[in-house]
Amino acid sequence: MTMEAFETTVPLSLSAASHAARQALAAEGFGVLTEIDVSATLKSKLGVDRPPLVILGACNPTLANRALELDPAVALVLPCNVVLQQSDGGTRVRADDPRQLMDDPRFAELADQAARKLGRAVGALGAGTGR
Amino acid sequence: MTMEAFETTVPLSLSAASHAARQALAAEGFGVLTEIDVSATLKSKLGVDRPPLVILGACNPTLANRALELDPAVALVLPCNVVLQQSDGGTRVRADDPRQLMDDPRFAELADQAARKLGRAVGALGAGTGR
Repeated sequence: MTMEAFETTVPLSLSAASHAARQALAAEGFGVLTEIDVSATLKSKLGVDRPPLVILGACNPTLANRALELDPAVALVLPCNVVLQQSDGGTRVRADDPRQLMDDPRFAELADQAARKLGRAVGALGAGTGR
Repeated sequence: MTMEAFETTVPLSLSAASHAARQALAAEGFGVLTEIDVSATLKSKLGVDRPPLVILGACNPTLANRALELDPAVALVLPCNVVLQQSDGGTRVRADDPRQLMDDPRFAELADQAARKLGRAVGALGAGTGR
């Protein structure tokens, strides 16, 4: 199943949570390459109102480069999504588990490394904001 | 396995293939929400030289909205990647198979629809450029 994730909820607005998530990701070597404001996009394209939802595309260049050297097809599952969703208690933050995205045994060691780093980033985000 | 894909190779430069891919995707209702120049990013971050590789993030808003209504966790696997890779014969184009990304049975009908649309876009891209 591809929708496994690391998860925390932080007592912050979505935009403050996005800032904090970028810092936590950077501390583990992940840059944010893309940001999709899903609710704004769907409002603009379909006129529908959905709760605030943002997808950050996070990438650790060292690990991504090694994975691409193994097989450029790994680009089909890059970057890792970090999803920020407005919730009652603040903002729910979920990050892809790279072990689910890259389930080919050739990527096992890289996926484990990426998972440890993303897991630490999400854990630090939760700890740093009082949860 | 998450790296199944629709695929074609077109006798175009990567930038011409990107333009053609955007048109083929638009004809099936997909907008391109993100574009990552992977080789430029890795050159900038790590100083490494890799062959040209671009990831487009494609999204069909109607299908995405219906999937998010079923479960916002689907944001962990959105958008669909369309990967453009410089090859000897021009540009290799590969698109995620949404049935692999959304393998939860609740999403089966939406994933099938998205797969048919993406498959047609990639097929039309190949046909329209003489392959």
